[in-house]
Amino acid sequence: MKIEHLGIAVKSLKDSDDLFAKLLGKPAYKREKVEREGVTTSFYQTGDSKIELLEASNPDSPIAKFLEKKGEGIHHIAFGVEDIYAEIERLKSAGFIFISEEPKDGADNKLVVFLHPKSTNGVLVELCQEK
Amino acid sequence: MKIEHLGIAVKSLKDSDDLFAKLLGKPAYKREKVEREGVTTSFYQTGDSKIELLEASNPDSPIAKFLEKKGEGIHHIAFGVEDIYAEIERLKSAGFIFISEEPKDGADNKLVVFLHPKSTNGVLVELCQEK
Repeated sequence: MKIEHLGIAVKSLKDSDDLFAKLLGKPAYKREKVEREGVTTSFYQTGDSKIELLEASNPDSPIAKFLEKKGEGIHHIAFGVEDIYAEIERLKSAGFIFISEEPKDGADNKLVVFLHPKSTNGVLVELCQEK
Repeated sequence: MKIEHLGIAVKSLKDSDDLFAKLLGKPAYKREKVEREGVTTSFYQTGDSKIELLEASNPDSPIAKFLEKKGEGIHHIAFGVEDIYAEIERLKSAGFIFISEEPKDGADNKLVVFLHPKSTNGVLVELCQEK
């Protein structure tokens, strides 16, 4: 497993794109809307991993709820895996709990699934596999 | 800049070492106490980056305060840089605020410095340079 990306919840993608471009010394390499998840995302390459900024695209978005409850900040960590179905089975056997066990289409051409933070030290963990 | 590591605050390094070894499929490669910071740390290699678990080693530790306020979860993201002094100057000029502008000895043989979350979208950002 490698850190594929780190997801950061932001109020305004426009403002935060300016901020992260200055912080990282380069602009986002793409912006993508994921309608089903209610998010608009920006991606930055940082070495072998990425930073994903997440803005809510509607008031019912999980990101809107996160911002309301916790404010801006790190939302999730995503580990890249070769075989997401095998990893789900391995981790279920080890006692980890998934928010949903069925991988779904995510941003950046990935199949994604999330572990529940209550089984992972309060950390929202995503597994993702290139489609 | 690359993601050098992701720091996660945990209540019990013993319990969380068990958990992350299962999650990542391998044990920590080292444990290290950083007396000056009031933390005991475990490190896991994940691709080109690392996961650092942080346990408070005394009640005044920043990690003890973080756990009290927010509970277990992601504490900071660290970007590896080649020249930490040049990066501090670059980011100060760009308007970023540092908790302290003077790099200090951190875990894992690094010089480290932290940006204030109020200037970085609520994210505690560390810069680190190999000593």
